[in-house]
Amino acid sequence: MVAGIRTPLPIEALAKPLPKAYQDLMATYKKLERHYRDMLDLEFTIQEGKLYMLQTRVGKRTGIAAVRIAVDLVKEGVIDKREAVMRVGPEQLAQYLYPIFDPKRESQHHAVGKGLPAGPGAAAGKIALTPERAVEMKERGERALLVRRETSPDDIHGMSASVGFLTAKGGMTSHAAVVARQMGKVCVAGCEALDVKDNGTIRFGTFTLKEGDALSINGFTGAVYAGEIPVVESEIIQVIQGNIKPEQSEKYRYFSTLLAWADGFRTLGVRANADIPDQAIIARGFGAAGIGLCRTEHMFFAEARVPIMQRMILAKTREDRERELAKLLPLQKSDFIGLYRAMKGHPVTIRLLDPPLHEFLPKREELMVEIARMELNQADPVRIEEKKLLLARIEELHEFNPMLGLRGCRLGITMPEITRMQVQAIMEAACEVTREGIRVVPEIMIPLVGLAAEMKAQKDLVREVAADTMRRCQTKFPYLVGTMIELPRAAITAEKIALEADFFSFGTNDLTQTTFGFSRDDAAKFTDFYMNRRDRCPRCLSREVDQKTMKCRACGLQLSGTPENILDADPFATLDQEGVGGLMRLAIERGRKGRPDIKLGICGEHGGDPASVAFCYDLGLDYVSCSPYRVPIARLAAAQAAIKTAGNGGAVKRRPARRSRPTSRRQTRC
Amino acid sequence: MVAGIRTPLPIEALAKPLPKAYQDLMATYKKLERHYRDMLDLEFTIQEGKLYMLQTRVGKRTGIAAVRIAVDLVKEGVIDKREAVMRVGPEQLAQYLYPIFDPKRESQHHAVGKGLPAGPGAAAGKIALTPERAVEMKERGERALLVRRETSPDDIHGMSASVGFLTAKGGMTSHAAVVARQMGKVCVAGCEALDVKDNGTIRFGTFTLKEGDALSINGFTGAVYAGEIPVVESEIIQVIQGNIKPEQSEKYRYFSTLLAWADGFRTLGVRANADIPDQAIIARGFGAAGIGLCRTEHMFFAEARVPIMQRMILAKTREDRERELAKLLPLQKSDFIGLYRAMKGHPVTIRLLDPPLHEFLPKREELMVEIARMELNQADPVRIEEKKLLLARIEELHEFNPMLGLRGCRLGITMPEITRMQVQAIMEAACEVTREGIRVVPEIMIPLVGLAAEMKAQKDLVREVAADTMRRCQTKFPYLVGTMIELPRAAITAEKIALEADFFSFGTNDLTQTTFGFSRDDAAKFTDFYMNRRDRCPRCLSREVDQKTMKCRACGLQLSGTPENILDADPFATLDQEGVGGLMRLAIERGRKGRPDIKLGICGEHGGDPASVAFCYDLGLDYVSCSPYRVPIARLAAAQAAIKTAGNGGAVKRRPARRSRPTSRRQTRC
Repeated sequence: MVAGIRTPLPIEALAKPLPKAYQDLMATYKKLERHYRDMLDLEFTIQEGKLYMLQTRVGKRTGIAAVRIAVDLVKEGVIDKREAVMRVGPEQLAQYLYPIFDPKRESQHHAVGKGLPAGPGAAAGKIALTPERAVEMKERGERALLVRRETSPDDIHGMSASVGFLTAKGGMTSHAAVVARQMGKVCVAGCEALDVKDNGTIRFGTFTLKEGDALSINGFTGAVYAGEIPVVESEIIQVIQGNIKPEQSEKYRYFSTLLAWADGFRTLGVRANADIPDQAIIARGFGAAGIGLCRTEHMFFAEARVPIMQRMILAKTREDRERELAKLLPLQKSDFIGLYRAMKGHPVTIRLLDPPLHEFLPKREELMVEIARMELNQADPVRIEEKKLLLARIEELHEFNPMLGLRGCRLGITMPEITRMQVQAIMEAACEVTREGIRVVPEIMIPLVGLAAEMKAQKDLVREVAADTMRRCQTKFPYLVGTMIELPRAAITAEKIALEADFFSFGTNDLTQTTFGFSRDDAAKFTDFYMNRRDRCPRCLSREVDQKTMKCRACGLQLSGTPENILDADPFATLDQEGVGGLMRLAIERGRKGRPDIKLGICGEHGGDPASVAFCYDLGLDYVSCSPYRVPIARLAAAQAAIKTAGNGGAVKRRPARRSRPTSRRQTRC
Repeated sequence: MVAGIRTPLPIEALAKPLPKAYQDLMATYKKLERHYRDMLDLEFTIQEGKLYMLQTRVGKRTGIAAVRIAVDLVKEGVIDKREAVMRVGPEQLAQYLYPIFDPKRESQHHAVGKGLPAGPGAAAGKIALTPERAVEMKERGERALLVRRETSPDDIHGMSASVGFLTAKGGMTSHAAVVARQMGKVCVAGCEALDVKDNGTIRFGTFTLKEGDALSINGFTGAVYAGEIPVVESEIIQVIQGNIKPEQSEKYRYFSTLLAWADGFRTLGVRANADIPDQAIIARGFGAAGIGLCRTEHMFFAEARVPIMQRMILAKTREDRERELAKLLPLQKSDFIGLYRAMKGHPVTIRLLDPPLHEFLPKREELMVEIARMELNQADPVRIEEKKLLLARIEELHEFNPMLGLRGCRLGITMPEITRMQVQAIMEAACEVTREGIRVVPEIMIPLVGLAAEMKAQKDLVREVAADTMRRCQTKFPYLVGTMIELPRAAITAEKIALEADFFSFGTNDLTQTTFGFSRDDAAKFTDFYMNRRDRCPRCLSREVDQKTMKCRACGLQLSGTPENILDADPFATLDQEGVGGLMRLAIERGRKGRPDIKLGICGEHGGDPASVAFCYDLGLDYVSCSPYRVPIARLAAAQAAIKTAGNGGAVKRRPARRSRPTSRRQTRC
């Protein structure tokens, strides 16, 4: 049982054969759970009809169960709301967002078997009976569903290639179950009815399927279906999208109840990173109090827009560039209108164009090869010449380290017409939506500022175009101009930059890149090793170190101690509090010297990581901004950080006079 | 005269026609120079035989003249040594190092003309009569010597393409003269004998030359020669190389006298960056008290070594890699032996392998094109396959931002056998030279450390190999293990890193790259503009701004004020004291917390820039390290910084107890 290799019966199965022991067990578990005020794991044995309790501890649970238990315990008066909020791991909320089967279609199917719901979500795919087969299917672009008697570590490559696993044997702690939850895969374990034959078929009772046939598994209920049931968004997301009414979804009620309680303790604002109206709607549904980062370049990557963007980049004169920019203006404006409408008065932080321009152009090396081929094939010289001209411009834009090149505000300063177009679109859209009666608070964000003079140059331009547009549209509304803090130099010189900026938003992705000198695209080559050095020989890097004698079996080195890991966690996932966080601390301290009421946020990936959210709370930020789907996680993490600080007797120690901004801001949380 | 468009006569020419005025002038100038205690520019006029003085100021002078005047004034008892040291701009010393004509060969030539020595140095090349012609010659790989009646701003492209300029008209402040000194080109201006014809010929009296003929000009004496005289190293460098005896060179005596005086005031050590023994010899000759940076990778770029390096990189197993490394070991060891011998007991800081490995391999895109061509030409499939394998490995090593990728200590940690080989070479060489009776102080420097654990891992490895080598060789000597501080994270976490490091050397090139987020290879695209924004319209970037009405003539914008420059200076040439310097300050403060007697140096390009040297002195560094040729400049700059601080009443305020290191160090300056 404990090893997870036997499939357990439901506890009620005990009632008939051993009624006395069953009653004792029921009485004992109620007593224990009252004592521990939580759901428990119980270990027991029954010998000659007599119940012996072996051990107990607070029980492991899925995220969905954790929320349910916490909310129920509050309703039963066992714990209070504060404790309920503390009892759910923020990361566990992610389980609410897993896809499910289309409920109507699932109800039309009859389950061929039932097992334990060991990995949440819903998966449909083709049966693979070996890991090798699963890999093959994945390579052909098919969704594989790995079906095994039980899984073992040798199956890992096949498990990784599958959308889900179904096993005949094993419980909630079996290999398949543990790996599924780690990998975020769907899993039904210990399906008793399943018989995996050696001839390439599987049977559920009398019903036979063969490798390659369609199968569907429900990781929430443990149901197994023959055939492919369409997978749809999670219930929570469907409620947010308006497909299901909130009162129809029990899951949504639990989910939103706990988050509402969390908001009661939370002081840190939570915004979302959203580039298009659809994302903004999801973000609002998850409780985001604004957009903390809209990356305007994403609007240009749409298929119809890339050619205009390319012509803009390849233009030889400012006039030609302005002509193409004029075509982008209405497209960008309509994007902003959609965002403002979706956010219904909540602030929208819009970052001006950030990436290096060559990202919009064909790849240099591919074009070089193409030209070489055309020349050898004696293609039309006019077309070759065209390609060569294009290559020449790409060569001009080529950079050895694009991450550290002509991008961010450097674009807007050297090509001010790009900034002008973007600000005009932001402002014209705001005028239009304001006239619709919707409040709009654009927060224009200048990327990659390292020098106060850069900020001033761009701010002056923004103010000029904004004033001009408002005058033309005869509409007035408040707006802010701020900057990303994403370069060490910006952090060090934050006092001067704050004199020019209404707000700072920490761009911790880039700040992590420059602080560490790690390129996010390249660093995995060594950071993976940095995080897993502990179990290797420091000389030959072999894992064959005898833990007793501390001698390497591969190269013979006598180790003087256990090698240390160089990194504990991936700094792009969890904020490096010592280094990057140290620079953030400096920037806040110095930024407030320049502008005591400066608004402070974060908009890197870290804004949705619970440990990083807690750190941002400690730093005294006004808000975190993260992917829309991580907003609930950030809300819960922020509440827990506030509760923990209060518990340490520090409920009021934070948050100085930042609320007293002159700009009228309606929302209580940004 | 003042406009520089007339060629002046020597002052003695006045003696005969106007003897009274001449005597008055002589008496007045002596009186004035006594009063000002310096060489003066005098403006005067003579009307009806009577001398009128118009104005006077301290005269501009070449670097060589400045040293001579300062030293002579001390000998005449007019000023003291301290004042002499302050009177020469450190950058002016560079003029001593310009190439000269081979003296024997020059004495065999008879000058065809003589002009003003307007740009120091010696240049020989082919006559170009138009800037276009000079550009053409340069493109063909020829040395062009631009010969013009006088030059104008339209000639700039041709001036830039030439090795020197000769003009018929104009004085020391003429266009040609000013541009020459700015560009560091050789110039003889106002050569009276020169007649530039319109038919593509020039005449010196009766002597005719045509475009394309060889010509030589001496920018120290103003002499012009027909034909090409071989150019050799400067007199100073020849003394250092032992080709001329010090007592034979007046220039060297003046030069070394001033620098000896400077050393009397200087407390900041000056070292040199040198990779090979030849450079080390020059460095010692210029007074470097050690090597502050030996870049070991430069030793691998030698033609015979690159193939071994490539096989090492392409090796599939550690064993194969170690086999190739074993071949590099004796080569690297012999380099170090040369360096130690040249440095005669002064410390030698050796940086372990730093650049990304793909720098040693063929270029990815070139190989891609080559393979495409081979395929189309149906080349030998075996050879194509070989190339493809090579490409595959290059692709594996390819990085989007190599500057932020697998380099520095990341190489030594993931491939410890590279560090082992390098340390073994450093230590075996030190053993050998120690046994020759020469004191050796290797300082092993770990590059690109951002995490204390990286430093610890590499330091442990270094100590292990060092102990092992010393045991094998039965020789003992002191050595240090330290790190570069070249990442913001290293500066922020310097306290922890200092616990593992004997010294810090600020790698301000890389630190500038990461602090600003500027790639040194790419940033000129926008930094040139950043430094020259002041005179442009902020909307259309045109330079056509009417300075009176502040209206742009190109786009019509009414400017509200003069646009600001974004950058005052190139941060890769002159240290950014606010940003990069701010991080250095932090690193020093925190590093000393971790290790109070930590040794501190700088080894970026900035180590030879006078303003940056002064800043390093203020920061309290132990030494600066710069290119061998900039050592005299750094020595003088360091002396001036010390004198200035003393003048501010702060002679003793700096330099805490850093001299009390446990390691025995003989030298008084590092």
